[in-house]
Formats: sequence, structure tokens, C-alpha cells
Amino acid sequence: MPDQYRILKEADLRDYLSGLPEVSKRLGGATADWTITEVGDGNLNLVFIIKGSAGGIAAKQALPYVRLVGESWPLPLSRSHYEYLALVNQAKLAPSLVPHVLHHNEALALVAMELLEPHIIMRKGLVAGTTYPRFLDDITTFLSRTLFFSSDLAVPAAAKKEGIATFAGNYALCKITEDLIFTDPYRVAEQNRWTSPWLDATAAAFREDLDAHVAISRLKLKFLGSPEALIHGDLHTGSIMVTERETRVIDPEFAFYGPMGFDVGAVIGNLLMSYLASAGHERSPGERRAFEAWMLETIEQVWTEFSRKFLELWRSEPKGDAYPLTLFAGGAGAKRLETERQAYMARLFADTVGFSAAKTIRRILGLAHNIDFEWIEDARMRAICEARSLRLARDMLVNTAAYATIGAVTGAARQARDWQPDFARE
Amino acid sequence: MPDQYRILKEADLRDYLSGLPEVSKRLGGATADWTITEVGDGNLNLVFIIKGSAGGIAAKQALPYVRLVGESWPLPLSRSHYEYLALVNQAKLAPSLVPHVLHHNEALALVAMELLEPHIIMRKGLVAGTTYPRFLDDITTFLSRTLFFSSDLAVPAAAKKEGIATFAGNYALCKITEDLIFTDPYRVAEQNRWTSPWLDATAAAFREDLDAHVAISRLKLKFLGSPEALIHGDLHTGSIMVTERETRVIDPEFAFYGPMGFDVGAVIGNLLMSYLASAGHERSPGERRAFEAWMLETIEQVWTEFSRKFLELWRSEPKGDAYPLTLFAGGAGAKRLETERQAYMARLFADTVGFSAAKTIRRILGLAHNIDFEWIEDARMRAICEARSLRLARDMLVNTAAYATIGAVTGAARQARDWQPDFARE
Repeated sequence: MPDQYRILKEADLRDYLSGLPEVSKRLGGATADWTITEVGDGNLNLVFIIKGSAGGIAAKQALPYVRLVGESWPLPLSRSHYEYLALVNQAKLAPSLVPHVLHHNEALALVAMELLEPHIIMRKGLVAGTTYPRFLDDITTFLSRTLFFSSDLAVPAAAKKEGIATFAGNYALCKITEDLIFTDPYRVAEQNRWTSPWLDATAAAFREDLDAHVAISRLKLKFLGSPEALIHGDLHTGSIMVTERETRVIDPEFAFYGPMGFDVGAVIGNLLMSYLASAGHERSPGERRAFEAWMLETIEQVWTEFSRKFLELWRSEPKGDAYPLTLFAGGAGAKRLETERQAYMARLFADTVGFSAAKTIRRILGLAHNIDFEWIEDARMRAICEARSLRLARDMLVNTAAYATIGAVTGAARQARDWQPDFARE
Repeated sequence: MPDQYRILKEADLRDYLSGLPEVSKRLGGATADWTITEVGDGNLNLVFIIKGSAGGIAAKQALPYVRLVGESWPLPLSRSHYEYLALVNQAKLAPSLVPHVLHHNEALALVAMELLEPHIIMRKGLVAGTTYPRFLDDITTFLSRTLFFSSDLAVPAAAKKEGIATFAGNYALCKITEDLIFTDPYRVAEQNRWTSPWLDATAAAFREDLDAHVAISRLKLKFLGSPEALIHGDLHTGSIMVTERETRVIDPEFAFYGPMGFDVGAVIGNLLMSYLASAGHERSPGERRAFEAWMLETIEQVWTEFSRKFLELWRSEPKGDAYPLTLFAGGAGAKRLETERQAYMARLFADTVGFSAAKTIRRILGLAHNIDFEWIEDARMRAICEARSLRLARDMLVNTAAYATIGAVTGAARQARDWQPDFARE
């Protein structure tokens, strides 16, 4: 741990921030009048909101352990460094879709950034049944630009290798994903939990399901060894802040060079969970039908718009070393390359389907759950929604080839919405 | 270029080596009596053989440019650093199958190592029709151990990422492969050459062959973005020195974390070329039949023995993060994991077939040729042998799925041996 590191308390933070001209100016007024509130509700870090007479900022400090678990689970402070690097990179590639960084102190593992206000965590809005008209365009711009422009389609090999090396040190965060997403939900692990007793049998079945174990192991291998692009690495709806007019992607501390489908699958998997959790938040039958229709439409469009934008970038800015244009000269060459681009996207879609399923299963059977389900007060109803999600995800994981189009995914999601697990029929 | 670097001349080298106790001792006698000969016949470096009264050593110095081309093609001296790192790593994993390193000077880009005597470059022996009884066991031990023990099957993810980062700086050598193997032979490139006029039409056909262009581009993408293991990166029969009793793999300056199939395919592709070049070295029809039968048998066994040894290591030392044993507990789990291991090897074999083809095509249509063909004096006969190799390689490249077993490969090679290109029938 660097010498200067200490866990910041209010007075210390106030003092520190007062020494930063850009921050002081943005906050305004007397330092003593700033209000400081710790609001972190994530799993890992401290998050402060500081407000002054002129405005506010957010400050995020990494703790030397996993906040959700405590000091028994140490975690390197360096993740703050990687988060900063990722934010800077994303700001270049997707301007206005990530929070503006005001200050970074590596020794303190501290990043200060603009306060996103009145943005809320998208997941909360989805639980409340709110639709977000900007989300589709913004998230597909974010995904297509950050993934394409860090891939071998856009970046010469030497620069790409340098990028991979730069993020190789973020292995501890990758390890969390490797364990919590790709391993623990499929075996006995102390930290696993699920909605008991209703899902006991399902959880046990996943622990015995060798088809699922092979499929998740193949995805894990891909996660370990496919540095396709600089991915966000944790792109669920809790890492997206929204208003009706704006979208911001936050918290890229899991960033590293990994498979693109992991990010796209994170978005789609989390939207699928929100969709299937929606029934649990109804106060009267069918009251969220319009919201659910929007969700399905959005899920379909996330893939089609992402794919469209990604392909457009590939056609217009193919500056990487992969698929050199000189091998696809002339009309016939261009046509063949276009066919190959579609084949590339089909492979990426298969990855997306698999990772989407993996992200879902871990949220229901693993350590970290999400409020889409957790906030369904009736535990039996929550279990019904979770069982539907698991049913869909298990099939997407094991029979990935059957989901060749996003329409196949949303079609299956629609069917899962109406499916009743055995315990719901009793 | 580091300050101390200079291209070593005989007197300078003698002086430098005399200051190294281990080297002096091995050479023996008076420094002035040492004989120093520059023997480098590779494409990139200076290679000196130094002999004294007690023994000999070899010293390899990187030049700041590609020797084959000249100063117009600069190449970083750092490749010597990566070669040294790779040699040290290989010596640990495959003891006695690489030359023993005596000394490394990073600033001089110099590696001094044991003199391999009476070893000869394997390719020369194969041109002469010599068989090597140790080769099969040794090369499959080298391949299986160096690849397995640097893969996600053997190494925890954090250490693997560190390894990837360590070799990321060797991008300039990777770039040579990317250009000369995966790109240039399929387009007009000044440095391309082939046996003209006989192969003019074939070379032109490859430049127009969009099926081949898609296939080679997919392999290039895999080469760019699949750090499966620390590969040798240039494992042709010119990088192997042999006697009837010993095998040594040399020259790993192209080492980096890449796809395993690239190394296995390099061995198999180069053996296939030796086999199909053999007819060109006959002085009387059929005189090399026994040699050719040995070649085909060896090619088959290289895959089956490599595969057997690799799988054995996976079963006995699965210490990596991929395919955790806890997901495959009990008898049914073990059986399923074994099935998955076979599937993994099938994917690796497909890569091997593709890369093997790519390595062949570049040697006949690209910049760097090999003596298997070059030493066939009758240019028309050479072209016939090359055309047979290209015919086989093109099919392996484009119809890889049709080569599901090594027997399919050797069967097709046997057919290619008897095939006559149009120009041979005229």
C-alpha cells in the first residue's frame, strides 16, 4: 500500500479537496460550508458526494479490501489507477457518455469527478418501471466506439499489445469475475446465496449440470485469453446513470483487454433480468405491460444498433491490422469482406448470448445480487421471477447456437415471462 | 539503440568474451588462439562460432536491421532480450531440448550459448534424406511442455497476464509474421517471389482467391489476439538442430504469447514441405521412398504424440484457472471433462491445420523461402514440388474442417505427392 494512502474521513477529504483549485472552484463558497456525504452503495469502494454553493462533485476512493465482504477479502488499490485510465480512454472515444474526471491521486486511490445530477442508477429506474428514451442510442454508441476503437480492427498490433500490457496488472479485479461469475455459482461456495427454499432445487441442479459446467468453462477460457478490446468489465445497469436526457457509464475499475461479448452481454443480460423481474414489481396485474414492451424492444435494439454502429465504424475507419483492405480489393473483395463482417458479428453475438447468460446466473445463485430481484418483497414471487431468468439463461448458456438472432433471445424471454416453475403451481 | 551497442567484429568479440570466466573456461587455451567464424545463415542476425583448445561456444548478436534485407528494414535489438527470456523459460520446461545459455548482454543484444556439435540444421538433414529417430519424442516433449505450462490450463490468471505483458514489447517480430505470413503472399508485395514462370498463374490465383483471403485473415486475427501460451513463434525445421541422438530447438526470438496452433502448425507444415520437396531431390525414381514413408509417419506421430503428452499434462497438473476441477467432480464429471479435453484438442488441431497451411504458402509465394525447395536445382521440378505443396496448403487453409484428423492431412499429402500440375503435363 503506498505510504500516503489512508482511508479518507470527512475532515481529511475536505482539507485535501480544498487544495485542488479546479475542485474548489467548481464547489464554490467557503470550504467549511461544503457538505460531504458518503453514499457508496456498490460492492467495493467509498463514494463521497461533496456540495458547495456553486456546485457538486463526486469522489471515489478505493478501499484495500472488498467493501461488501470486509477486510478479510483484500483487493489492490491499483484498481483506482485502472479505473482512471479507462475513464480517460472512454472520454476520448465516447465523449459525454462518461463522467468528466477532475482529479486523480494514485497514492490515495482517489478519483474526483463531476457530480452526475439528477442522474440515478439505471437499475433503480428500471425497478420503478421508468423508460429512458436516450439510453438506446447512448449505450450503443458507448459500446460500439469503446470496443471497436480498442480492437484489432482499429488499432495497429503494436499499440494494441501495449494496451494489453498496460491493463495486465488489473488481474485482481479480473479474478473476482473469474471466480464469482465463471466458477462459484456452479459449485458449493460459501458465499453463494439464493432465494431459499424455492430455488434450493434449482441451485443444486446447476451444481450438477455438466452441460452448463462445460459451457461456463468455455466462456471462462474466453474471458481469460481473448484480449479483443479494452472492455468496461462490469457493465451492468448499476454501472449506468441516467436521466431522460442523458446517459453516463461509470465505474470501469474492472477494465482490461477482454472479449467484447462480455460488455455487450452484460448490458443485454441485465436488461433481460430487469424485464423478467418486472412482474415482481407489479401492484396490479399487467400494469407494467408498456414498460415491459419497451424493455424487449430496447433489448432487441441494443444488439441491432450496436451491431449497425460497430459495422459502420469498421467500414469507415479500418485502421487496425486485422482484415487488411488490400486483401479485399475491388467489388468482389468488398462484397466478400462485408460477408465476413457479418460472420464476425455472428460470432460476437454468440459470445454475447453466452456472457449474458453467465451474468444472469451469477446474480441469482452467486454472491452479488441485484435490486431488480432483491426489491421484490414477496420472496416467493421473487423466486418465481428468478426461476424464469435462470430458465432462460441456462438455455442461452447451453444451447447458444439456438439463439442466432436477438429476436430468438427476446422471443424466449417473452415465453419465460409466462412460465411458471413447479413451486408456483403448488 | 543502447549506448554500448556496436556490431561486433572478431577482435572486439574476442576481447569481450575473454572477460567472461565461464566462457573462457569452456573455450580453454590462450585467447589469441581462439578461432572465430561468422556463420549466420538465418535472415536476421550475426552468429559466431568460437573455438578454443577445450571446446566451443556459439554467440548470436542481433543487428539493428533485418540481415536478409539490410539497413532499410530496421528491427529492434530488444528481440535478443526476448530470445534470452524465452530460452531461459524453455530450459526450465523442456530441459536439454534448448541450447544452454552461458551469457547474455542486453545492451550488446548478445547471447552466448553452448556450441551444438555435431548437430546440423534439421532442414538440411531432411533435404539430404536423413531420418532422425529422436526427433519425434523430443519435439513433442518440447511442444507439449512449453505450450501447456504457459497456458491457462497450467498457470493462474495473474501470472499468465504478467507473462503476456512481459512479451508484449516483442511486437516488431510479431509484425514480421503478421506481414510476411498472413498478408503479403495474398497481395501484390514487392518482396514476394516464386518460381517463375511456372507458378506465375498460381501466385496470381492466390492474390484473387477470396476464400483464401478470408481464411488467412481469420488466422491473422487469431495470431493478433489469442495469447494462449508462450509460443516459440518461428518453429520451422531451420530452428531445430539435430543429430541422430539429440534435438535442440533454437532461435526463439519471435517468442510471445500467441496461439498454440501456430507452433504445432509450424512443425507440421514444415515437415509437409520437406515431404513434398523430397521428390525434387531424387537422383533416381523412388530412391527416397523409405525417407518419405518416415516423414509421413513422423507427421502423424507429431500430432498424436503431442496431443497425448499435452493431455497427460492436463490430467496430471491442471493448476491453471481454466476448467477448474471443482466443476467436474465425481465419475460423471471426470468423464465429461475428458470429453471436453478432446474437444479442446480438436479445436487446437483445426488451428494447427490452418497455421500449417499458412506457413507453407508464405514459403513458396512470399519473401522467405526454404532450402527444401530452393535446393532443387531443376527449377521446373522445384515448381512442381511447390505446386503440390500449395495445392495441399490451399485446401487445408480453406477447407480446414475437412481435415479433422492428422490422417486426413497425411492422406491428402500422399495424394498431392502424385499430383501433376498442368505445366508438368505439357
